[in-house]
Parts: sequence; C-alpha cells; structure tokens
Amino acid sequence: MKLHGYFRSSASYRVRIALNLKGLRAEHLPHHLRKGEQRAPAFLAINPQGLVPALETDAGEVLTQSLAIIEWLDEIHPEPPLLPKDALRRAKVRAFAQAIACEIHPVQNTKVLARLREVGLGEQQVTDWAAWVIREGFIACETLIANEPGPFCFGEAPTLADLCLVPQLANARRFGVDVAAFPRLLKAESAAKAVQAFADAAPDKQPDAE
Amino acid sequence: MKLHGYFRSSASYRVRIALNLKGLRAEHLPHHLRKGEQRAPAFLAINPQGLVPALETDAGEVLTQSLAIIEWLDEIHPEPPLLPKDALRRAKVRAFAQAIACEIHPVQNTKVLARLREVGLGEQQVTDWAAWVIREGFIACETLIANEPGPFCFGEAPTLADLCLVPQLANARRFGVDVAAFPRLLKAESAAKAVQAFADAAPDKQPDAE
Repeated sequence: MKLHGYFRSSASYRVRIALNLKGLRAEHLPHHLRKGEQRAPAFLAINPQGLVPALETDAGEVLTQSLAIIEWLDEIHPEPPLLPKDALRRAKVRAFAQAIACEIHPVQNTKVLARLREVGLGEQQVTDWAAWVIREGFIACETLIANEPGPFCFGEAPTLADLCLVPQLANARRFGVDVAAFPRLLKAESAAKAVQAFADAAPDKQPDAE
Repeated sequence: MKLHGYFRSSASYRVRIALNLKGLRAEHLPHHLRKGEQRAPAFLAINPQGLVPALETDAGEVLTQSLAIIEWLDEIHPEPPLLPKDALRRAKVRAFAQAIACEIHPVQNTKVLARLREVGLGEQQVTDWAAWVIREGFIACETLIANEPGPFCFGEAPTLADLCLVPQLANARRFGVDVAAFPRLLKAESAAKAVQAFADAAPDKQPDAE
C-alpha cells in the first residue's frame, strides 16, 4: 500500500495512526500542501480530487476520505478493532469522529483559511476563526464523552474517535485554543499518547516534517 | 423513534430519505434553526450539542451526526441496504458521501455563513463563498463517479452517496451554482427524484416548511 499524505494534515495523521495500530506497512508519499504539490499532474492522475490522504491499495485501487479509508482498513484487517461490536456504541463512536471530521476540521483546514485571507481577513482574524470553530466543536465533543469512564474516548482501547481527536488537539494548540477547558478530551489524549502507534504517527516524526 | 430536524437542514434531509427508504416511521420534531430554536433548553436537555438532526431511539438513546445515524439505521434495519456488501465498494460510497458531508456542507452551513457576516462579509460575498465551496466539491464528486454507469451514484439502487447528493444539489441551486456543469451528478439526482422516498423527504413537503 501507498499512503499519499502530508505530515501536518490532520486527516493523513488519522490514517497513519490506524495503519500503525493495525501493524500495517505503507509507503509514505508526501505532498507539500502549502506548496500546492497536491495539484501536481502526477498526483492528480492518481487522485483527481487533489486531496490527501489517498491510499493506493496493493491492487491499485485509490481510496480517499480519511474516515472511509480507516473503516476500510478496519473491515479488511479487523484486529485490533477500531469500532465497537455493538451497533449503538458504534454509532456513538462514529458520531464523535464526525463531530470532528464534519464539524470542526473542514472549517479550519488550509483551503478554507486561504480563502478567508483572499476575501480580506487579516492573519489575526484567520487565527481567531480557526480557534472559534475548534472551541465550539470541542464543547460538543467534551459533552459527548462526559459520562464515558475511558481512559480513551470510548472505553479501554483506542477507537476511530481517538484517531480523530489527537490530530484535532494538535491543531487546537497551533491556533492558541485553551485546551485545559476540555479535561475529558485531554484524558483521552493522554491515554493515546502512551501508545506507540500514536506516537509514531505524530507530524514531527514524519520524514517530510519541517 | 423521534427525529429532531429542520425542513431546510441538509443533514436532516439525508436522514429523512433513509427513514423513508427503510419504511420506518419517526415522529418529526422541527427546530427552527434561523430562530435559534436548537438552542432552547428543552432541546439542549435532549442533545447538548444543539444540532439537528438528532434521533431519539425507542429505548431513549440519542444519536447525532447524520452519517452515523444512517449507518446505524442500516445496521439495525438492513433492507434495503444503503451500502454495498463489498468492502472496497463500500469505501467508495462512504468516500463520496464524505466528500459532501466533510468537504462541502460544513463550509456552507448556517453557522459558518452567519460567522462570515459577523467578520464583515457582505451578502453577495457570503453567497459567493457558499457557491465556491459547492462548485469545488462537486468537481471532485463528478470525478468520483464519472466511470460509474449508474443511474444512481453507485449502481442501480440508491446508497448513502445519493442520500448526501440530493440535499446538496438543492443547496447548490439555492446559492446559484450552475449545476449543468455536473451531468453525472444530475443523472443520479434524476434517478433519485423518481423514488417516492426521496420525493417525500424534500424540504417543501415537511410540516415546518415555510
């Protein structure tokens, strides 16, 4: 398998954690988003969406969208599972993951922040925008797992929820969000960071890190 | 079951289609987003995120996030299936759904457009913003199913992909996007609109429609 990614992309980071937890090897092919390398013709031939992450399977199929890639990995390589067996619990884990992947991250990604600059916002306003959406989203996320004993988001092992949370917390700090306001999220992060698969997937451990 | 929704909410619209396709009845409880009714204490007691849709199950559990709700419905009531049986095909359907639910819709939802007005954008700039993100996202979506014979997004029956596409096309028209540029998407919409479950879920057919 080949993973087209970028060290600082949250969505690529989620997939790196999943691959590591499953003990799967993939060739990592970085594309520098800030330099626009995801728009290079060679990459567009592989993924016409020009987005990372994209996973090329051994059969040459190209999968996109981090949550879809991770669910596919979980179906093909079920151990250790990234979703609970019970349908209701699975719905709750997916809802938490989507509270990040559909509510927070898309509103503060590189493309949207660049567009905000184009329509006239200054650098401080752009940072405030990112911090705003992360804070609002984290208030919801904190509530979603408030009654979950943990230590991970849902139970005693990492799930898709933790794979989304850890990269989003890294973004939160980058934009100056006071993460101390979210003790339950930090508890889950702390449990995750003690797992080698998470540590090895961190942006600063990637070959393309700056 | 009770579905907390709003006639014009794309994410509620997706869940309404799923319920109709499965032949499931749910009590529809509207919350007027523009009047801020989703922030009313009675609703926050049910869903502290203050978001629609939220599905209250017969057992009193509250599920959030439209894609998580739909996958739960599909697991509990498998017929007719909303995802293919094959893992790779399932990943492609999920990726298409997420290309809308994670890339387009969150960047043009009511909350984000309101925030754009707050940071100083005029009404035309706000409309241009929404049209921009829909157009960019649809270019990717059109590519994702370019080689799918259809008539639906993936095959001869509706899937999660169509449940996301139809509401997003309605938004596209509302923001003045020239949808004629996306013939494959329109082909899928045309197939979907001939299905009663889709027709009955349309915003203008809901009791809270204005």
